[in-house]
Amino acid sequence: MKIFSEEYFMNEAIKEAHKAAEEGEVPVGAIIVCKNQIIARAYNQTEKLCDVTAHAEIIALTSASNYLGNKYLNDCHLYVTLEPCVMCAGALAWAQLGKLVFGAFDHKKGFTTHTQPILHPKTKIVEGIQPEVCKSLLQNFFKERR
Amino acid sequence: MKIFSEEYFMNEAIKEAHKAAEEGEVPVGAIIVCKNQIIARAYNQTEKLCDVTAHAEIIALTSASNYLGNKYLNDCHLYVTLEPCVMCAGALAWAQLGKLVFGAFDHKKGFTTHTQPILHPKTKIVEGIQPEVCKSLLQNFFKERR
Repeated sequence: MKIFSEEYFMNEAIKEAHKAAEEGEVPVGAIIVCKNQIIARAYNQTEKLCDVTAHAEIIALTSASNYLGNKYLNDCHLYVTLEPCVMCAGALAWAQLGKLVFGAFDHKKGFTTHTQPILHPKTKIVEGIQPEVCKSLLQNFFKERR
Repeated sequence: MKIFSEEYFMNEAIKEAHKAAEEGEVPVGAIIVCKNQIIARAYNQTEKLCDVTAHAEIIALTSASNYLGNKYLNDCHLYVTLEPCVMCAGALAWAQLGKLVFGAFDHKKGFTTHTQPILHPKTKIVEGIQPEVCKSLLQNFFKERR
């Protein structure tokens, strides 16, 4: 795997998703990259924090803004294992995110199920990076529980 | 003003919006009510916290879930001075909010500008409670700054 490739960074997001699974959380992980440096890492913590807003993307976004001292993330790339939901896409829009890269599609709750655009018009979107790995993480998690 | 009326609770949200204005934040305030008791109060703090997710609704939601020890807010009513954006509406959907009451419409960024439903199907919506007061707060804020 080439360093600083989309696959490389998605692999780092997948590592975060594994941490979520280990803690009994729906396994979604995210990282935020600025100039090839990872400035934030997060995974879904809705159960632990008892808070529906504690999605990986929201935690990563807050963390990255804190690191940069800037609430706008125009020069940042977010890598997340699952397609963001409407809440998270709305947050990424406010942050004017530079690029969104996601792994698996979320055909039920993903923001692309909405026909009207939610992201900032300048946000580039790359979809389907390591989708099978990202998807199987979720499938295995729910298989064990149902 | 009758106690426990929509106007009464919206007035409490307006008090929160005033706190935001005093701190130089876009004046939006919110409260969450459960069985006629106010269990969370919040106002927009995106500048202070340097975080686009720090909308009044998100802070109130996190606070209410923490108070109740429950991430679902089916028995709760959120009063907010401005129509929630897509991010906040998405968060309220995850929380399965019982009732949303808002003051002024946000014709640019409000969630009702989206044709597809964003809120949870069981969430009741009451709109336009004290809209002029809520709107003038925002208008005065921007007038002073532009």
